[in-house]
Amino acid sequence: MKKADLIFTNATILTMDDEFHTHKPGALAVEGDSILAVGPQAEILENYQSDNVMDCENKILMPGLINAHTHVPMTLLRGLADDLRLDVWLMGYMMPVEREFVSPEFVRLGTKLACAESIRSGVTTFVDMYYFEADIAQATADAGLRAICAQSILKFPTPDAASYEESLKAAEEFIQAWKGHPLIIPAVGPHAPYTCTDEILQACADLAIKYDVPLHIHLAETAGEVENIRKEFGMPVIPYVKKRGIFDAKVIAAHCVHIDEGEMRTIQHAHAGIAHNPSSNLKLASGFAKVKKMLDVKVNVGIGTDGPASNNDLDMIEEIRLASMVAKCESGDPTALPARQTLAMATSMGAKAVHIDHLTGSLVPGKRADLILLGIDKLHNSPNFQRDPDGIYAQIIYAAKSTDISDVMVNGQWLMRDRELLTLDEDELIAEAQDYAKKIDTFLIEREQSVLSKLIAIGGAMQQESFEVQAKVHVTDPDSIIEALEKNSVEVDYSRHYHEYDTYFFFENEDQGRLRYREDEFIDETGEIINVRGRLTLVGVTREDAFDHDVMLSRSRYYAPATHSLRFYREYFEPQAELDIEKDRKRYKIKYRRVDFYINVDTLIKPDLGHFLEVKSRTWSREDAEKKSRIIAELIEYLGASSEAAETEDYIEIVESHLRKA
Amino acid sequence: MKKADLIFTNATILTMDDEFHTHKPGALAVEGDSILAVGPQAEILENYQSDNVMDCENKILMPGLINAHTHVPMTLLRGLADDLRLDVWLMGYMMPVEREFVSPEFVRLGTKLACAESIRSGVTTFVDMYYFEADIAQATADAGLRAICAQSILKFPTPDAASYEESLKAAEEFIQAWKGHPLIIPAVGPHAPYTCTDEILQACADLAIKYDVPLHIHLAETAGEVENIRKEFGMPVIPYVKKRGIFDAKVIAAHCVHIDEGEMRTIQHAHAGIAHNPSSNLKLASGFAKVKKMLDVKVNVGIGTDGPASNNDLDMIEEIRLASMVAKCESGDPTALPARQTLAMATSMGAKAVHIDHLTGSLVPGKRADLILLGIDKLHNSPNFQRDPDGIYAQIIYAAKSTDISDVMVNGQWLMRDRELLTLDEDELIAEAQDYAKKIDTFLIEREQSVLSKLIAIGGAMQQESFEVQAKVHVTDPDSIIEALEKNSVEVDYSRHYHEYDTYFFFENEDQGRLRYREDEFIDETGEIINVRGRLTLVGVTREDAFDHDVMLSRSRYYAPATHSLRFYREYFEPQAELDIEKDRKRYKIKYRRVDFYINVDTLIKPDLGHFLEVKSRTWSREDAEKKSRIIAELIEYLGASSEAAETEDYIEIVESHLRKA
Repeated sequence: MKKADLIFTNATILTMDDEFHTHKPGALAVEGDSILAVGPQAEILENYQSDNVMDCENKILMPGLINAHTHVPMTLLRGLADDLRLDVWLMGYMMPVEREFVSPEFVRLGTKLACAESIRSGVTTFVDMYYFEADIAQATADAGLRAICAQSILKFPTPDAASYEESLKAAEEFIQAWKGHPLIIPAVGPHAPYTCTDEILQACADLAIKYDVPLHIHLAETAGEVENIRKEFGMPVIPYVKKRGIFDAKVIAAHCVHIDEGEMRTIQHAHAGIAHNPSSNLKLASGFAKVKKMLDVKVNVGIGTDGPASNNDLDMIEEIRLASMVAKCESGDPTALPARQTLAMATSMGAKAVHIDHLTGSLVPGKRADLILLGIDKLHNSPNFQRDPDGIYAQIIYAAKSTDISDVMVNGQWLMRDRELLTLDEDELIAEAQDYAKKIDTFLIEREQSVLSKLIAIGGAMQQESFEVQAKVHVTDPDSIIEALEKNSVEVDYSRHYHEYDTYFFFENEDQGRLRYREDEFIDETGEIINVRGRLTLVGVTREDAFDHDVMLSRSRYYAPATHSLRFYREYFEPQAELDIEKDRKRYKIKYRRVDFYINVDTLIKPDLGHFLEVKSRTWSREDAEKKSRIIAELIEYLGASSEAAETEDYIEIVESHLRKA
Repeated sequence: MKKADLIFTNATILTMDDEFHTHKPGALAVEGDSILAVGPQAEILENYQSDNVMDCENKILMPGLINAHTHVPMTLLRGLADDLRLDVWLMGYMMPVEREFVSPEFVRLGTKLACAESIRSGVTTFVDMYYFEADIAQATADAGLRAICAQSILKFPTPDAASYEESLKAAEEFIQAWKGHPLIIPAVGPHAPYTCTDEILQACADLAIKYDVPLHIHLAETAGEVENIRKEFGMPVIPYVKKRGIFDAKVIAAHCVHIDEGEMRTIQHAHAGIAHNPSSNLKLASGFAKVKKMLDVKVNVGIGTDGPASNNDLDMIEEIRLASMVAKCESGDPTALPARQTLAMATSMGAKAVHIDHLTGSLVPGKRADLILLGIDKLHNSPNFQRDPDGIYAQIIYAAKSTDISDVMVNGQWLMRDRELLTLDEDELIAEAQDYAKKIDTFLIEREQSVLSKLIAIGGAMQQESFEVQAKVHVTDPDSIIEALEKNSVEVDYSRHYHEYDTYFFFENEDQGRLRYREDEFIDETGEIINVRGRLTLVGVTREDAFDHDVMLSRSRYYAPATHSLRFYREYFEPQAELDIEKDRKRYKIKYRRVDFYINVDTLIKPDLGHFLEVKSRTWSREDAEKKSRIIAELIEYLGASSEAAETEDYIEIVESHLRKA
């Protein structure tokens, strides 16, 4: 008789080993951090004894679940912003809040909260990618969970690094410090192809190979990502990253929603794993991943919750159910992802997908004692049928709740007994999290009150305080103006031809100013569009001093390149009203009487308000402005228009007053 | 100060009224079965008082959920058969088990189990369709839940009626008995277009109109259903049922997965409601319903779990979450079905969809007191942000669990207090359900052991015990046989030309016999296929007595028309091996020497084994058989073939021995 530290008896054991052995009644012996033996009860009790025998009547004993992709500290951002498009959600809310709040303290608290929730849903291992990963690792190890912790690396500054070189250096130090830990496997996390450069991808692959640690990355999450990579590099995402050498490392690829069969084969050949995230893919409308096909071509696919800010929880029981159900409907085959296979995705196959099947994922002697007990005798899972040997897997997948999980052990250590957490103080964590939520609420409420701060939050804006003189006159024959300009008496530095599409956002509180989204199409001599530029301008209320014929304007403007779509800005800024103006603009930079002027010969197309001549010049003093305003009047007359009708309003004001009259 | 029976105070109230009023802190006064007043706490407490004040700190008070489509007694079949195609699941398992077990006792127990589970998930009203609906109504009323109970009507015999006339009569009596009950609304349930006739649909519509009760029906659940209705009636499902007058009744249409925008508008114009069932549609791979589009065209859409045998639970909290998430991905729009709207689908809009919004669905004075309390301060729903007024709805939709629901009241009566059920004994129900499961297990295990009983279970088979003489010879020139036949010396009663595709299923236990699936294509003189017939034959092991030149065979066969696809039978019978035989057959019924014979001139195409002449005749005695066998030998010679090589094997044996040699 061999001695064991603990023997589980009288259980229904799902080993999730390669042959899916089950034992009923089964027994399992634990010694230290590992499984000593597992099998039919009679056989185990013949060979092993222990002072510590746990009767598991009416309970299923099975491997703990593996959450193959998440961002655990984002528990603190759960429910902060929902029902938004990915870009608005990410760039408008998550990233600005992260820039402001994410710190070692933040990630430790968020991680602890996530560990508590993970244990409650039967998770014994998770794969994380976030910032300050060493702090996440520490909090996870303290809670007693197993984790692969990938230090995020992006081409932008992040909450924990001013540059990617700094991130890479931190990642290497993190790996050196944590490699060999009994619970934590450090890893490299190049965030995604669209947030990394070729150089970063290659450096991350090199680092992962050097230390033989996993490389965790988001791949092909959205159709837009694939389209952009195709446009820029002429190939889909998987070949693109393959060329950067990432598949020489042990890759855990999150999402892979938009990959074809060839790409799946590439992943399979590379022994890379996919982390499938059904909740996140549905909630952000990223698409239905072709999971049945992935399994058909023998890719190891794990299941992940993704971060709790896009899920919005870490409930792996729900996630597994969803994976099975969605794959059936996506493939049109209700026999796809049957219960047993789906449970394997969250245990044994999941362990292969994240490269730790030598440690965990099945109840096999020698592996670590990462296991859970759950009851399937509750109301919502009654009755129990015995006919179909796979029925027990179906009960777990299709009707179990995470609250049915009673006990959780990781690495031979109890983390939950009879629904009571042993390594974390839940009430304290909830209270601390609530304090953070209050701070974030205050920050966002303040930000939301000001269009300017919302503009700054999504990538900054340059302020420009300018003084200028300006006059605008209605003209009937723009061609004669252009002819006059092209005479020799004015010196034309350069000329441009644009087609301009402006959308103005108006806000309830007029003090917020107006936000203009402008798309400039640059037109060449043949009429072809050779370039398009987007620009965002926040215009405050204009203060003006009128002169005789024209004015000096003091303007406060904030400029930002418009890197997102008009739709993004609409959903992000939520304007109360909008107005579109479309015009054709011929623009000249000229010198007249040795003064620089900008001359615009404009045709307002939408609304159709005819032609305008606009003359502008920068100024710096009232005296200079008065002088320039006189020259402007002269210039207007010189170009064949009448300066009598000159006005100082912007087009938006002209259009507004036109619309009021109409 | 008015008196109330009960006042809820200090709650976060989501009224789900037309303007989505919320009150925090809010109060709500109940008098008898109804809501007396609801509003800000201070205002309510100024006007109402009660001896019974319930402090709801940290709780949300909201309307109970409406499960818009289910089959409650099927709790007793939960987990019986999963990961199967709809037809195999329904025809192979559900219906045979229902034929055997469904009784008033069965439905009462199943209903009680479902009521307990429903209360635990915050459901205060459900819409049911099953058999013995009066017993379901009684069990539901005893449990204190509100329900619309639709008596199922099908063109087939059902567990509660031998014919649809009987069902209709029972439905009318049920309606007369229950109309006006404070909790139960009786209804008519024509099951679906494909299980009803035109006459049934019309009669059901008439009945629903006569008594002004809802008509509940499954519509356009699968693409196959739509295809069949199109084929038969030249139009999609919705116009088809409209022509049968059903939309003159108050329709609750379950599923509607495969309808277009025009059909949605028809439903909207008819003020009919749709019951959307995301879990069921995913799990059975029926398809992704276009819920965003339905809402865009202003159809009232409720959410249902469908029966717990296809879900596999009655957890409406999960179902609501799924409805929102799937609709986002299906429409490609993450802003679709935002949390508030989705919660309305399960409450106020759901009540409209099932035609009871005058009674329930929102917390409005005068409506019945159908309400629930839930906490959102749990670990998995922390922290709570306040910035976004819709954030509270998002917390319910994206992170709440049914176990967060603490208290449930229906019609002013408490059904659950602090997670304790007050009207049902959970442990007793679970034990009774387990007893049923054992009986069903025994029945199915027995059935599964025999191919014959599985065949009988899916619609019966006719037994034919026959004795026949038969001889088969290889021929090289079939045309000369046919020429000989068409001479006058044999009297040809008729001739046929078939193309026959046979698939044989073999089973591990050879005593089970072999199951043959045959598709006969009937060919006319021009070579056109004029008809196709499917037939299933279970052939036992043939006992034979050999004679000189031929044999008398005693065969036991079971025939059944093959109404399903080969794929269905493959998945249902799970054969160990299969064999395909394809042949061209010219068949003659002739008289020769005043004896009837069947002559087959066959060409084996797959495998390619050449031509055969087969002669058969029925017999009834050894003496008669001997006589006929002599005539057969003569007939074979007469037709120009040699009777020396005659053999008695069936084609399947010839093919098997050929394959063994190859």
